[in-house]
Amino acid sequence: MPKKVDHRERREEIARALWRVVEQQGWNRATMREVAREAGASLGQVQHYFSTRTAMLTFAMEFAAEHTSHRVAEGLAGVAHPRDVLRVTLAEMLPLRPDSRATSRMNAAYVLEALHDPELHTRLRDELREKRAIVEHLIRQAIADGHIPADRDPAVETNLVLSLTGLTTLLELDVIEPSAALAAIDQHLDRLFVRPPRSGSAARADRTG
Amino acid sequence: MPKKVDHRERREEIARALWRVVEQQGWNRATMREVAREAGASLGQVQHYFSTRTAMLTFAMEFAAEHTSHRVAEGLAGVAHPRDVLRVTLAEMLPLRPDSRATSRMNAAYVLEALHDPELHTRLRDELREKRAIVEHLIRQAIADGHIPADRDPAVETNLVLSLTGLTTLLELDVIEPSAALAAIDQHLDRLFVRPPRSGSAARADRTG
Repeated sequence: MPKKVDHRERREEIARALWRVVEQQGWNRATMREVAREAGASLGQVQHYFSTRTAMLTFAMEFAAEHTSHRVAEGLAGVAHPRDVLRVTLAEMLPLRPDSRATSRMNAAYVLEALHDPELHTRLRDELREKRAIVEHLIRQAIADGHIPADRDPAVETNLVLSLTGLTTLLELDVIEPSAALAAIDQHLDRLFVRPPRSGSAARADRTG
Repeated sequence: MPKKVDHRERREEIARALWRVVEQQGWNRATMREVAREAGASLGQVQHYFSTRTAMLTFAMEFAAEHTSHRVAEGLAGVAHPRDVLRVTLAEMLPLRPDSRATSRMNAAYVLEALHDPELHTRLRDELREKRAIVEHLIRQAIADGHIPADRDPAVETNLVLSLTGLTTLLELDVIEPSAALAAIDQHLDRLFVRPPRSGSAARADRTG
């Protein structure tokens, strides 16, 4: 079905144009008209693919989330220990590289937009609850497998792991370096897990993406 | 100088109107015209107090930061232990109550705006570096006083404490309850400090420091 593929490709091109507008000019400027200009398309063409600005933003966010999942999956190739799974996942959620920075900024803007848009709020809430449940499942399994001490509270530990995304603001404002963010993540995970799979900071630095 | 006081009061009224617009309609709608409408003033009156939208946003942010400092100072009355100082400070930075929610949202929007505005970026970076230095100083002092184990890295621990503001997104999207955010903060601080001032749970026993 080449037509369907083209449709999808064209929507993705528009989504990428939207990312660039958000990255360079900010969320406020991400109107359908400006995105059309950036994509080298007419406003009518963009409106053909997305009936509303919200539909365009939603698709761009979902596409960004797919990209993040893809990067996480790539980072997890050959990784089995739950400590490494959490480390790779957290590192990809932080704005440490151009691609993760773009999706991180999209996400921050989207969360802000959701605060006064009930439909977006429900959608984002459900997505984040689902992600949180996956992390809690991983932590419960790590406790069952003896990787995390049995007296840890899985719900509390899940919230603490997810709170590490709060390093985003420090990174975006150049208050700390990427290496400091990774050191903080490693320190937290070292205290969460019984035994880090690899010891020594040198070995850990090698895994830096 | 009553005239100067009036000027300040009028600017604060406009800043409060801006907060309400941001809270209810989002940052995008916070134009000088919309803020004037919310404040019951004319556009010309708002322009008399603020020459540009950026000047208005900056004043509103500084006013919000003052409010946060004031709330923290109130919360710290009679508090001396560094663990409690960090707990009160973190709790006031999270959107747990209407007033801290308003300032938290203002702040999130402002950070996003700073990503494509070099002047705002520099200003916010300097402010956040200053706040970070205060927290690191507190942690170094707590290590010197024996409240935090001597083998902890003050810079890493500072970044971990500040990363707890990452609970904001989970709270704003109703993924976790305020009580869960406070439990996560308590758990983190229990593991950071040698002796929690409040009697905790068996969780203390698993401290690895």
